[in-house]
Amino acid sequence: MIDCGEGAQMQLRRSRLKFSRLNHIFISHLHGDHCFGLIGLISTLALLGRTATLHIYALKELEQLMRPWLNFFCQGIDFAIEFHPFTEKGNEIIYEDRSVTVTTIPLKHRVPCCGFLFSEKKTPDHIVRSMIDFYQVPTHELNRIKNGGDYVTPQGEIIPHNRLTTPSCPPRKYAYCSDTTYIPENVSLLQDVDLLFHETTFGKDNEVRARETFHTTAQQAAALAKSANAKQLIIGHFSARYEDETCLLNEAKEVFPNTLLAKENMCISIKSPLTIKL
Amino acid sequence: MIDCGEGAQMQLRRSRLKFSRLNHIFISHLHGDHCFGLIGLISTLALLGRTATLHIYALKELEQLMRPWLNFFCQGIDFAIEFHPFTEKGNEIIYEDRSVTVTTIPLKHRVPCCGFLFSEKKTPDHIVRSMIDFYQVPTHELNRIKNGGDYVTPQGEIIPHNRLTTPSCPPRKYAYCSDTTYIPENVSLLQDVDLLFHETTFGKDNEVRARETFHTTAQQAAALAKSANAKQLIIGHFSARYEDETCLLNEAKEVFPNTLLAKENMCISIKSPLTIKL
Repeated sequence: MIDCGEGAQMQLRRSRLKFSRLNHIFISHLHGDHCFGLIGLISTLALLGRTATLHIYALKELEQLMRPWLNFFCQGIDFAIEFHPFTEKGNEIIYEDRSVTVTTIPLKHRVPCCGFLFSEKKTPDHIVRSMIDFYQVPTHELNRIKNGGDYVTPQGEIIPHNRLTTPSCPPRKYAYCSDTTYIPENVSLLQDVDLLFHETTFGKDNEVRARETFHTTAQQAAALAKSANAKQLIIGHFSARYEDETCLLNEAKEVFPNTLLAKENMCISIKSPLTIKL
Repeated sequence: MIDCGEGAQMQLRRSRLKFSRLNHIFISHLHGDHCFGLIGLISTLALLGRTATLHIYALKELEQLMRPWLNFFCQGIDFAIEFHPFTEKGNEIIYEDRSVTVTTIPLKHRVPCCGFLFSEKKTPDHIVRSMIDFYQVPTHELNRIKNGGDYVTPQGEIIPHNRLTTPSCPPRKYAYCSDTTYIPENVSLLQDVDLLFHETTFGKDNEVRARETFHTTAQQAAALAKSANAKQLIIGHFSARYEDETCLLNEAKEVFPNTLLAKENMCISIKSPLTIKL
């Protein structure tokens, strides 16, 4: 889960995702609309009988704020809560397992703030069974070949990797940037992401206000998606002044056509091609 | 406002009540479903430009928990937040103005907990203009007469109060009791209330569980309403195990027919007769 505003547990319930699948929560910054839902969510996880450790990644102040509340409201719960503090400097690996790394993206807001880049690791290529049989490749060689190796026959002939395998799906990348002023310098960190979520609090009618309040306009978010060669952009975190956000969508699409408006409980599968479920 | 669970500010917005009309919040006890919405509500009040002091009535621990969060998340807000601590002993006047008093009701839950009794003060009786004219009552006597006095004519004749006035509406009383085990001894505090909200977490199928978890069944709530001679009972705070709470309503109605099921954003005007808007 990325950010956890008030009512996040109700939205999680509506999304029909299982609460037990939630193990890692990433908090971009310490404004209420990004973290006030944590205490209620954790209380509910306790009521549901959770035992697995919950990991929370945030600036260090969050633990200092949360601990007294957890000690008071969640005493005797059956699972540990581990806080993993990061700094707002960004570009720091804060999570890694065998399939994914999570890296902070430096953002500029009124308070210290980071975005998150979720980068899948490359998975092994697929063995072509007929070629393996043809060259009589021994089983113990297969893992090495899947991971990029060539095969050398007993006769010394080199069979190149790409003759024995078909490539695995390219690893996917998702970047989340909220809340922030427009930072064109982040383009290198966002290069080739499959999906970029970027805050779009304002339209071009409020470009000055966006700068003053450390927010981004639709066209700025789109410019970032375009120069980063993102496959898709999703914009959200709209100012309440826009009753209909279609104007923001249209402004973004002028610069980066493959843009979507974020909606409550929207679900996007990152594949090629991207599939979207509303 | 009485109690403020997570999402209370969203419900307040849906109710179309003005945020600026909210000045006093009464918190019955320090479980998350009764107070986790405070910090978000206060943040929103700050965004709306509030300047009037907000008064919060609660057990003393709430201020100790809230102050660090208020200092961090709500620094620089333009209104004061005053905490008014009360003890769980109950039967203590915690608020009074010229039209109403609020008294705590002792409850028994797993943590210290109080209900609240809102008692309207008697308003002055209505002057009968024709009688005032007939007896040529001087203007400076009117306030005294409205508030219960008789009139003595210059000839020494006593004109009784009830000949000069019609009675004002009887003062109304509303009692709120959640969360609590069944406490029949509270009947004297609840005597003749116009409306009693009482928690009904369980039905008679779970009477043992109700006792173990310090909650009340529908029939117990109804028994209290009946012996207190309440005009109307509204039951709420249902266990999630009841998909349809009609069974709880029916159980309560067997004992106290004038019972209602609480619903989100239900609005009840306490008049004679009571009017209910859904």
